[in-house]
Amino acid sequence: MAAPSVNVAVIGAGTIGLSFAALHLAKNPHCNVTIYDTRSDLSKYVDDKLCEYLVDADIEECKSRMQIADSLAGAVETANIVQEQGPENADFKRTTWAQIEQLAPQDALFWSSTSGIPASEQSKDMENQSRLVVVHPYNPPHIMPLLEVVPSLATSQENIDRTLEYWRSLGRIPVLIRKECTGFVANRLAFALFREACSLVAQGVVGVEDLDSVVEASMGPRWTVAGPFKSYHAGGGEGGLTSFMNKIGGTVQECWNASDKDIEAGNIGVGKPWQEDICRQTDEAYGVVDTAQRDKKTKAVLKAASE
Amino acid sequence: MAAPSVNVAVIGAGTIGLSFAALHLAKNPHCNVTIYDTRSDLSKYVDDKLCEYLVDADIEECKSRMQIADSLAGAVETANIVQEQGPENADFKRTTWAQIEQLAPQDALFWSSTSGIPASEQSKDMENQSRLVVVHPYNPPHIMPLLEVVPSLATSQENIDRTLEYWRSLGRIPVLIRKECTGFVANRLAFALFREACSLVAQGVVGVEDLDSVVEASMGPRWTVAGPFKSYHAGGGEGGLTSFMNKIGGTVQECWNASDKDIEAGNIGVGKPWQEDICRQTDEAYGVVDTAQRDKKTKAVLKAASE
Repeated sequence: MAAPSVNVAVIGAGTIGLSFAALHLAKNPHCNVTIYDTRSDLSKYVDDKLCEYLVDADIEECKSRMQIADSLAGAVETANIVQEQGPENADFKRTTWAQIEQLAPQDALFWSSTSGIPASEQSKDMENQSRLVVVHPYNPPHIMPLLEVVPSLATSQENIDRTLEYWRSLGRIPVLIRKECTGFVANRLAFALFREACSLVAQGVVGVEDLDSVVEASMGPRWTVAGPFKSYHAGGGEGGLTSFMNKIGGTVQECWNASDKDIEAGNIGVGKPWQEDICRQTDEAYGVVDTAQRDKKTKAVLKAASE
Repeated sequence: MAAPSVNVAVIGAGTIGLSFAALHLAKNPHCNVTIYDTRSDLSKYVDDKLCEYLVDADIEECKSRMQIADSLAGAVETANIVQEQGPENADFKRTTWAQIEQLAPQDALFWSSTSGIPASEQSKDMENQSRLVVVHPYNPPHIMPLLEVVPSLATSQENIDRTLEYWRSLGRIPVLIRKECTGFVANRLAFALFREACSLVAQGVVGVEDLDSVVEASMGPRWTVAGPFKSYHAGGGEGGLTSFMNKIGGTVQECWNASDKDIEAGNIGVGKPWQEDICRQTDEAYGVVDTAQRDKKTKAVLKAASE
């Protein structure tokens, strides 16, 4: 499906807002993007910063389809899609959506980039709660293809479908999350591994940099090509995941038991004593990370995986 | 450092043994490999199967540096490295190493590919316990660069260093694990994420195939380029991981709390009712996975990440 002709209103011009604006402009030649933010230097700021997100695109052509709005009304009045990345504050989002609903066209789609405030919470003051859905990126969205699409029970099927279709038409990977849950799916998975990582480093089993090497040389590339279920299914041979669990299940359970014991014993909660040492180790290992270089490599990896 | 001229004895010719044999032969033009296994059709079996692991290599040249031994003594008597991947049985390994120690040259390195039986356990009947170290691959080792090098307290620093050096000289990524622990590091990390994955699918938050898509489109490629500590350190901007934890730590802790609650409530232990449904979903989604295709893509991804 070709990317559709749409007006996108980007509300909130932090790094995620600019990254999304660049994504629409670069991947959808038929879109216009209007950016709104309360910062006073918005025009200059966007003019300075947007090009950083438009790598490999025709910057001037992209910018010719981008406008700055000086009011929320001006941003959304002709929008087909309103995409919000304001402060992570439930009251702010509730109030803002109730306003936007009064200002935007009847059939505009409403997307929030929140990483944690569910649509059911954000839409409480709206007249028509079927219009709002969370579209949670894996940062930065102009590089990473995942979008977690998390509807509330009130979100209409039509609006879910339109959301999935739009992102597919831009070549991204929208995944429908069937139930609102704490942290959605990507962060829940990543933080589960991160906790185990902190626990193993805190116990002196491995250093920060070596732990990163383990992941970069094993499950990173493996899971780029085949996610955990597909990987263990392949690991089981012809008998698949059932056979894997029959053969390796004992080891899996021993690892889970050891994790639980270590996490309890080592007190791996946020803000506990381990944290300072791990942050120091990480800082010593990496200093300031060159994210432009990281993003360039990530694009090459994604390209290799998709060929 | 150039790969050294060595005789490698590969004990146990299952898939891991053949994969390691192929790795030595393909990456080290100065090595000879002797394969030993108790199976009666060993010669024909290796002749038939080894070529599957020698993708992109000169198969005939590699095979010219490979021999089959008809006894353990014949396999190890001139070895510089003895690499064992026999049954995952502590008694078997203890007995075998005590034998090998009597048969191999004094300065030969002893490596076990075990995924769970520590060197301290395997070396109990050896006279000189300083010679044995676990070298745990991420399967299959002829594709995946990671090797977890896990010494016991008795393993000598010299033997640890020689082990790390050998693998580096072959362009692999050996990582020293500082303490023997259940499951070592890679599996501990992967199984922690896998448990969360099972828990979220068991609750109906997301399906098996969609969960794999989430991972393939987000943390897979991200962690190929930068492991979890480096990634979150970059995510914190100039303040690094400290800043990340200050800003996002609350969300991280909420996710950990939710995980713990869900795992308890959903009873996500191996063999519990969720398992059958998840295995069925996985089988329906993937059938038999084409591992040759997976390995080809993985090589392309690893190449892209290393450039």
